[in-house]
Amino acid sequence: MIHNQTTDLIANHRSIRAFKPQALTEDQLTTLYTAASHTSSSMFMQQFSILHVTDEQKRAAVREIANQPYVGKDGDLLIFIADLHRNQQIRQQLGLDDGRLHTTDIFFQAVEDTVLAVQNVVTAAESLGLGAVVLGSVNNDPAALVKALGLPKLTFPVLGLQVGIPDQEPQLKPRLPLNFVAFENDYPTDFKVSDLKDYDQVVQTYYDLRDANRRIDSFTKQISGKKLTADPAKRDGLAQLLRDQGLALDWQ
Amino acid sequence: MIHNQTTDLIANHRSIRAFKPQALTEDQLTTLYTAASHTSSSMFMQQFSILHVTDEQKRAAVREIANQPYVGKDGDLLIFIADLHRNQQIRQQLGLDDGRLHTTDIFFQAVEDTVLAVQNVVTAAESLGLGAVVLGSVNNDPAALVKALGLPKLTFPVLGLQVGIPDQEPQLKPRLPLNFVAFENDYPTDFKVSDLKDYDQVVQTYYDLRDANRRIDSFTKQISGKKLTADPAKRDGLAQLLRDQGLALDWQ
Repeated sequence: MIHNQTTDLIANHRSIRAFKPQALTEDQLTTLYTAASHTSSSMFMQQFSILHVTDEQKRAAVREIANQPYVGKDGDLLIFIADLHRNQQIRQQLGLDDGRLHTTDIFFQAVEDTVLAVQNVVTAAESLGLGAVVLGSVNNDPAALVKALGLPKLTFPVLGLQVGIPDQEPQLKPRLPLNFVAFENDYPTDFKVSDLKDYDQVVQTYYDLRDANRRIDSFTKQISGKKLTADPAKRDGLAQLLRDQGLALDWQ
Repeated sequence: MIHNQTTDLIANHRSIRAFKPQALTEDQLTTLYTAASHTSSSMFMQQFSILHVTDEQKRAAVREIANQPYVGKDGDLLIFIADLHRNQQIRQQLGLDDGRLHTTDIFFQAVEDTVLAVQNVVTAAESLGLGAVVLGSVNNDPAALVKALGLPKLTFPVLGLQVGIPDQEPQLKPRLPLNFVAFENDYPTDFKVSDLKDYDQVVQTYYDLRDANRRIDSFTKQISGKKLTADPAKRDGLAQLLRDQGLALDWQ
């Protein structure tokens, strides 16, 4: 690969889950928001918002939903929201109907706007010497999250981000070799799980080094295990929550 | 904001839609794939793939679907795929059922993995002096795209990316002021469209400078106009296509 400050930063990404007990400065926050706002946006509709959660009660509520002790603790908690409410307000205040705002198509565009912005914030944060972890766990209970944050209809909190001054130095997590994820012209139909033998060993070694006392499985054993079988209960309330929020109403 | 090479790069993002007639080098491609592969991944399930489309027939097919002349022309075309097929293969070849692979929850996680990776590739590309444009338009006809690319069940092409050596220098597109997109603790309920008056003027001026002969509207006029009302026909086949692909089957 070609090395420069930015490509090295991206290729050396680690999720950080332990932070020093210090909040971001206003300047740091503004930098992260600026990175988000300059992200590509579908049809220039700018359909995302960021909620910076500093209220201790709200932080505790999100932490309980995420069920991860570092969420809303040290560092700052940002919630990235697919936001069709703002554009609905624009249309309604101009005397118009909601147009296509309730379609799956526009909802997906908003989700894409939002997730692209998340990654720009992660990269910007890391370039400032900060660390971050993307929090899919905030949607362990989508309805509870929307309620805890007091979000209006036509919004959906897609991902959270805990960001702050790193208080750990994790090893780089080994990713699938590129030949398993990048293809030319044809999606391969000859995948063999046995081809992942070497990679499985690499992942196993990574976990053994990270914590010799805690047994964590190889990649294929993770995919064949409880990550894809355990009953996540309220995570499956997602479709219903989106419906309640007035989103993707044509999905059936 | 705080300036460094990476934050400046992100804050100065422009979508590039005109490229020199030169393909990426292997080294450049590997750098982009490496950036993608080191992106955060939900539960470490690495549920995305990239298809590099170099075949002229396939490029033409995608261009026709996207209905944009620069798609699959100069530069390189990448299609980013939410990929649950690979993990299904792992499970099936190990004698297991599909577990939660057909749920909305896992599908959304795959979409998030994929879109985060897209942004890392954009940023990496720009750091190499390349330009890129994210292509939501590849899903103007989701079923046709899946067919044209020969994608298996449990995959979904989320976004495309046209990337190459820039052959234009567009102005920076003015984004919504940060106070409209980033909030502390409470999502604002007092949005007034009239508050966007100044921003509307900025956007109007941007378009006037970009192309004095072509009238493009202010932000609020775009939101109140055909972007959210025109009948996109096949884009609304999205939910059905996902169902056909075996994705998010619990959505109803």
